Amino acid sequence: MGKYAVGIDFGTLSGRALVVDVATGRELASAEKVYTHAVMDDKLWDGTPLPPDWALEHPKDYLEVLAEAVPAAVEKAGVSVDDIIGVSVDFTACTLLPILADGTPLCFLPEFEHDKHAYVKLWKHHAAQPYADKINALAIEKDPVRLARYGGKVSSEWLFAKAWQLLDEAPEIYERADRLIEAGDWIIMMLTGKECRNACAAGYKAMWHKREGYPSNEFLKELDPRLEHLIDEKLSRDIYALGLKSGDITARGAKLCGLKEGTAVGMANIDAHVAVPAAGIVTPGRMLMIMGTSTCHMLLGDKESVVPGMCGVVEDGIIGGYYGYEAGQSCVGDHFDWFVKNCIPESYTAEAREKGISIHKLLREKVSAQKPGESGILALDWWNGNRSVLVDTDLSGMFIGMSLTTKPEELYRALIEATAYGTKMIIDTFEEYGVPVTELVAAGGIAEKDAMMMQIYADVTGREIRISGSGQACALGSAMFGAVAAGAERGGYDTIGEAAEHMASLKDLVYRPDPENHELYKKLYAEYKLLHDYFGRGENDVMKRLRAIRREIKEGK
Amino acid sequence: MGKYAVGIDFGTLSGRALVVDVATGRELASAEKVYTHAVMDDKLWDGTPLPPDWALEHPKDYLEVLAEAVPAAVEKAGVSVDDIIGVSVDFTACTLLPILADGTPLCFLPEFEHDKHAYVKLWKHHAAQPYADKINALAIEKDPVRLARYGGKVSSEWLFAKAWQLLDEAPEIYERADRLIEAGDWIIMMLTGKECRNACAAGYKAMWHKREGYPSNEFLKELDPRLEHLIDEKLSRDIYALGLKSGDITARGAKLCGLKEGTAVGMANIDAHVAVPAAGIVTPGRMLMIMGTSTCHMLLGDKESVVPGMCGVVEDGIIGGYYGYEAGQSCVGDHFDWFVKNCIPESYTAEAREKGISIHKLLREKVSAQKPGESGILALDWWNGNRSVLVDTDLSGMFIGMSLTTKPEELYRALIEATAYGTKMIIDTFEEYGVPVTELVAAGGIAEKDAMMMQIYADVTGREIRISGSGQACALGSAMFGAVAAGAERGGYDTIGEAAEHMASLKDLVYRPDPENHELYKKLYAEYKLLHDYFGRGENDVMKRLRAIRREIKEGK
Repeated sequence: MGKYAVGIDFGTLSGRALVVDVATGRELASAEKVYTHAVMDDKLWDGTPLPPDWALEHPKDYLEVLAEAVPAAVEKAGVSVDDIIGVSVDFTACTLLPILADGTPLCFLPEFEHDKHAYVKLWKHHAAQPYADKINALAIEKDPVRLARYGGKVSSEWLFAKAWQLLDEAPEIYERADRLIEAGDWIIMMLTGKECRNACAAGYKAMWHKREGYPSNEFLKELDPRLEHLIDEKLSRDIYALGLKSGDITARGAKLCGLKEGTAVGMANIDAHVAVPAAGIVTPGRMLMIMGTSTCHMLLGDKESVVPGMCGVVEDGIIGGYYGYEAGQSCVGDHFDWFVKNCIPESYTAEAREKGISIHKLLREKVSAQKPGESGILALDWWNGNRSVLVDTDLSGMFIGMSLTTKPEELYRALIEATAYGTKMIIDTFEEYGVPVTELVAAGGIAEKDAMMMQIYADVTGREIRISGSGQACALGSAMFGAVAAGAERGGYDTIGEAAEHMASLKDLVYRPDPENHELYKKLYAEYKLLHDYFGRGENDVMKRLRAIRREIKEGK
Repeated sequence: MGKYAVGIDFGTLSGRALVVDVATGRELASAEKVYTHAVMDDKLWDGTPLPPDWALEHPKDYLEVLAEAVPAAVEKAGVSVDDIIGVSVDFTACTLLPILADGTPLCFLPEFEHDKHAYVKLWKHHAAQPYADKINALAIEKDPVRLARYGGKVSSEWLFAKAWQLLDEAPEIYERADRLIEAGDWIIMMLTGKECRNACAAGYKAMWHKREGYPSNEFLKELDPRLEHLIDEKLSRDIYALGLKSGDITARGAKLCGLKEGTAVGMANIDAHVAVPAAGIVTPGRMLMIMGTSTCHMLLGDKESVVPGMCGVVEDGIIGGYYGYEAGQSCVGDHFDWFVKNCIPESYTAEAREKGISIHKLLREKVSAQKPGESGILALDWWNGNRSVLVDTDLSGMFIGMSLTTKPEELYRALIEATAYGTKMIIDTFEEYGVPVTELVAAGGIAEKDAMMMQIYADVTGREIRISGSGQACALGSAMFGAVAAGAERGGYDTIGEAAEHMASLKDLVYRPDPENHELYKKLYAEYKLLHDYFGRGENDVMKRLRAIRREIKEGK
């Protein structure tokens, strides 16, 4: 009989369990559970309206993933839980929830079930921006070296901003919370009964550093006296490296997910980061792009370099022994979804229906024969702000070059190209600051499905692109860490490098840059860069002023 | 019995006759005749293909307007032709045709009926651009003061460019033509048997100046030796002020239009310009905006100022005794048509259908409650280039400020606002250069139908807006000039001022700027201006470079 590992990947809208053959990496079966409450961004499940920029989730949805997706995957795989040696979990981050000491989410308590602050603040909850601003302002003065590791700016998405917002706006919930915990670590806690905070989330989302630890209590106190003891009271200074075992599944855990008590459990990981070894990347040079609603760029380096606008550099944050670099584009596939939801005329929708294809496919068909620049349209891919390299959530989208003959598919393609320019900007910045990027590997839904887009990325960046072998790279990566948690002794592996050797793969497909298109894209990228810098680097802050006016009016109304 | 006047308005797709009570301005009846051949822009009536940018019309269609619309209007009005004291005509311009000395269009001759150059070159025939470019290049050197009266650039639509194209591409037609004449003047010729070229078309479309006359023969010779004697051989130096009588209807003219021989006939006028007195504007200060697919801005001034980017300033060009200023936005309603055709999702189209309202109305409903700036979106209204004040057809459209929550109606409203900012830019430029604009009067389809848009214009410009009383302002203006041609002695008026006093009207409706919105729009306009100047005045010529790349690829393909 073979040995199997299970990876559970918690995304933004659903969770997915994958059963993998430990010896070969063969994926036997997976099952997905769409979150019942989805993302709550305009109102809570009970109708309570939410302010702008909020994004919550309901932790019940995560438990449903354990209860439904895991057993379903195991059943489909047709394996016995006795042969499942390990399991691990990856999650979006920073996705934070307040819990009691025993792990109960505060929103499960009747007295808090209508209180928005008791719920999970999803990674893309942006309402803590004022707190992030203050953290940045103080850090630039008091802790600049740490700040520089995060591209000179921490995000409103991260732990301290979210925790501080909670404290400031709902002190009674903050008080009542015994722990503030990443949802990934919370799932591990549900399975093992132990709180084991993982180094990846702590490093990338909570300013933790392997050698220097967290920001000091004095720093936190200066932010807000009530925050002084946050770390010791509601977080933890015990941070665990990836690849360690957090524990075994308890009886309660087994009940939650249908796996066997005693199965080895790894550390939680961030979804994007766990996909790196799943694509076979365990050494520097190859950049992984995980392309979905947003894109994460993951890269290993030999040394700690300060690259402007990256999301973070964390020692051992992705693969032990290397510095893990993360950069990101906060909006990629979301652009296209916004576009097809808001900007596609009825005649197109009808045409797609008639042809029996998706509207995305129809738009691609209409525009794939175009040469770069043929539409005359250029976009800035900032519908959800810019993460790398500008680190500015107040930036917004732009289309330029429209005429009365402009067609929807041309705007659509301009959005695709804009995200490719954004990636090129990130690659160029890494290289400029001493972190080489020799080749690209793509993973995620877009990499799997969208050949036109991948070819555009190759043409824009002038680099070959390979595709991660698994269509479920995050879940595979988690399964690999599950196998490492089990260890060689139990039929798994002792290191993630060994696991990658056997379980990771790339597809045979290679996207190679077309030289003529690359030359055209060089010209167009130069225009993108000009506008990127003009709107993004302070020459004309119109986007921020428009945003400020908008905010003022919405608040005054 | 009352006295009546007839105005005949020749538009782009149809002609319309209107019977008006001279004493009160009451409109008794009108009749429209749609042109049988419409605009011929891809092929001639016989199937002869036309090159890109051509736009022709058939003069037979104009005669059908005389033959059908005029008698129909008179019959509907129930008045006797004996009581019709005067008639006049307005026409699109420069709408030029080659004729024999007796007025016969060359395209009526069997030997030329299949020759595209024998037909009417409609105002929007743009195929003479290379000739306009050469005229501009020479004029900037040799006749800069004249050129400055036209915003520093003459259009490919105008007389010399069209005449030169005819000479260059069809010299045999040019040779055979005894006269090249504006279609409006040709209609007057059909009615009176006399060639009386009107000052409005000569001034705005043929660079004629009351004191300096036409460009010199030397100038024309330098353009092309064959053009040297164009003016004396095929045009005329006798130019007639508006408000004069061109003659009486001849027996032949009476047969053409069903009016009585001897009826007084005014001078032809340009359609936009004749709407000015119809809105009661006969003195400086009030600007008329004729708002449709594009917008014309008409204004009187006491002196000749050189205002950058206007379409023209012509002494007596609109109302005798004043300098008539014209400016324009080349794309207004066309933006909204482009938008609803290309950018409206099926759910919206379905909702409009269900409610039984137009998609335009639905979008307005959705967005009319928004405050200025609430959407965070700003646009540049350059989908068809910019006429005033930048005079640059290579500029293109821009949207900025989009987020993932942006809705179609917000983009739509941003387009409306952008056209309002464009109008404010024109107003501010006029005022900066010494031509005051105290109040706005609007006419045309948008002014009639779109209360939300008119309110936005009032809020943006900070000025009251009144609406022209007549829904057929051009035809009314022509009828007024018909009454002036008849003169007081025959029961009409001696001046257009007197005619306006009795026959012109404004609606009671006044759009007054909302002070709070005006303050908000001041902020937004400042942002518009910044981008207007950045993209429009050479700081970043990305729009032109994108256009150039696009052209290259399209031509190379």
